[in-house]
Formats: sequence, C-alpha cells, structure tokens
Amino acid sequence: MTTSPSSLRADAARNRGLIVEAARDLFRTRGINVPLSAVARRAGVGVATLFRRFPTRESLVSEVFAEQIERCEAVLEEAVSDPDPWRGFRRLVEFACAEQREDRGFTEAFLATFTNDHDERREQAETAFDTLVLRAQECGRLRPDFAASDLVMLLMANNGLRAAPAEHADVLSRRLVAYLLQAFETTTGPGEGALPPASPLRLHHAQGQP
Amino acid sequence: MTTSPSSLRADAARNRGLIVEAARDLFRTRGINVPLSAVARRAGVGVATLFRRFPTRESLVSEVFAEQIERCEAVLEEAVSDPDPWRGFRRLVEFACAEQREDRGFTEAFLATFTNDHDERREQAETAFDTLVLRAQECGRLRPDFAASDLVMLLMANNGLRAAPAEHADVLSRRLVAYLLQAFETTTGPGEGALPPASPLRLHHAQGQP
Repeated sequence: MTTSPSSLRADAARNRGLIVEAARDLFRTRGINVPLSAVARRAGVGVATLFRRFPTRESLVSEVFAEQIERCEAVLEEAVSDPDPWRGFRRLVEFACAEQREDRGFTEAFLATFTNDHDERREQAETAFDTLVLRAQECGRLRPDFAASDLVMLLMANNGLRAAPAEHADVLSRRLVAYLLQAFETTTGPGEGALPPASPLRLHHAQGQP
Repeated sequence: MTTSPSSLRADAARNRGLIVEAARDLFRTRGINVPLSAVARRAGVGVATLFRRFPTRESLVSEVFAEQIERCEAVLEEAVSDPDPWRGFRRLVEFACAEQREDRGFTEAFLATFTNDHDERREQAETAFDTLVLRAQECGRLRPDFAASDLVMLLMANNGLRAAPAEHADVLSRRLVAYLLQAFETTTGPGEGALPPASPLRLHHAQGQP
C-alpha cells in the first residue's frame, strides 16, 4: 500500500487543523503556557507531529490567535475613525475587557504579540491608541488627565478578577469596566451612569492571588 | 552540663521569635503558602522545632498577622464611627488597598482569617462594612447603587496590579483606587477630583496572569 503525495498533504492539513483546534481549547482555559504534550494528546497526534507542524510555541500561538489579533486591530482602527471619539474609546475598552473575560489565552497571546514578535505592529497599535485618547480628550468627553497607561491599569485590574469564582467573574468585570468608564469621562453627571448588576460576593471571596 | 528550665524557656521563646520574624519576611514577598521548610531555614531552626512551636500553618499565619488583622478591624471600626461617613469609607478603602500593596501575605492572611477560622469575626466585619456603606449612602456621598461586593471587586482588581513590574505596581494601584473612589462618589463634579500621577507603562506590560 502506498500513500500518494496528495493524501499525505491531506493528512498533514487535517493534523494541522486538529492541533490548532486542540490548542485553541486549551489556551482558552489554561493559558498559552499549557504543556504542548497536552495539546498533542488532545489533538490525538504525536508530539513529534506537533513539532513538525509548529516548531515553536510562538508559531502555534500565532496561528491560533491570528484571527482574533486581527479583529482586535480592526476594532482599534474602527475606534480611531469613529466620528464620535468617545464612543470609539468606550467601545474599544469594552471590547478588550470582554475578550479578556472570555479567553485567557487570547489576552496572553495579544500581549505576547505586542511584546515579542511584532514591534512594528505594537507601535502601530500604541500610536493608534494615543490618537484615540487625544481625540476623545479634544472632544471634551475623556478627562484631560487620562493617561495611556490607564488602559494597562484597567486590563491588569480586569485580569485580577479571574481570581473570583467563575460564575461571578463576569459580573465583577462588567461592573469594574462601567465604574472606570464613568471615572474616565468628564461629563457624566454625579451618579448619572447606570451600572450593570452587582455580584453577591462577600469579603472572603477576594482571596485569589495573581 | 545541665540546662535549666528557665534557659530552656528562654531558648523556646527566642526560637519562636526567630520563626515568626522569618515567616513575616517570607509571607510578605512570597505569600502565606511558602514552604515551611524555607521558613525554618531562614529562622535557623530545624523543621521539627518549627512544628513543635507551630503545629499547623494556620497557627503560624495567625501569630504573624494577629497585629495587622487587629489594626484592620480597628480601622474599620474607626471608619464606621467617623462623623463623616464618606471620609470613613474612603479611608477604609485606601487603607485596605495600601496594605494589599505592601504585603502580599497580609492580604492572604486577612482573607484567610475571614474565610476559615473566624466566622464570627468575619460576620462582624461584614456587618460593620454594611453599616458603613449605608451611612455613607445616607449622607449622600456614596452612590446609592454601590454594593458591598464592589469592595471585593476593588480588592481583586487591585491584586491584579501585582502583575505589573514592581516599580510601577504602586503607581497603578493609587490611580485605580483614586478612579474608583471618584466613580463611587455621587458628588464629584465632572473631572473634579485630582488623580495621583500616571505610570509610563505601555500595552506590552500588561501581561501578568493571576
């Protein structure tokens, strides 16, 4: 029995798909540093096959999250060109925090993208965000003392809420984002903005550690 | 050479002191789940001696943090009886977040206290906090839709900032607390409250995971 080149290629493509799918599932729940042997096991392929397709962890991470990273860049671009810069700013913040809630791996991949491989992409994203901030300030809705690093603050704080029991984490995150967007805005009247519902958590739930 | 009972007692007291001091240092930087063998090593005593003095991790944690827990309870009590309930509320929040910044072990111990051993103490603290919230709302400064769980949210979010490089974590935390206190307050005029200085962090710094 011989294996034709085309069925070899079909096999390779199928394996590649299985690996990417398995990695997506595991990255989502356990982060991008999950052992690659676990990815291979879940994909039903050998570790050698995995390394043949993806010689480095980075190459697998890039493939898994390429689409999401692009979506993120698109949302940023959309935000920058929104005729209402404050709405653009708010949408970007809400989008980033929602992505963070839904997918642990994505946040890591997003930040890894902007840390290691793609200095140019990172600089573009940072410049675009600076522009967005400036416009939102110029239109009078974003407070003039808002700093770009306040977005980092928000993302890290939002990440800290993962320590909450899973069924509360979303509620806490929505609340945090709503509070901070109100604090970022110059023109919210006193206590004007409506908040999303509160969680029933008590003090002893706050024990997670980063 | 015989050892007198009093010198035995003196030895025991000295060892106890060395162990508590070593534990305090290690809990501060590495949290309360640091291996007890590391505590014994730093104290310069054998593990057997450590276990003779502190049969459980909880007993060591309680001893190390007893004073701080009491201080925390005192701050809460003071806040509740402050003639200006909003000032009391603000001080409590600022105190809790500052303690969290300074001592990782303390946050864990604080929450462990209110989780496991001391149900009664926890209930007391929660009731006192509820009273504080009610008073601050009744005096018109704390927004009526503030929920007690928003303190949990703030503590977890603040904890998430530990993921920042050490030299930035404090700045981010002060900023977060200032933003949230402004968002909690009904009567801050638009963009009125001054913020503490911003950090120079950029997006790629936001990669810590809890």
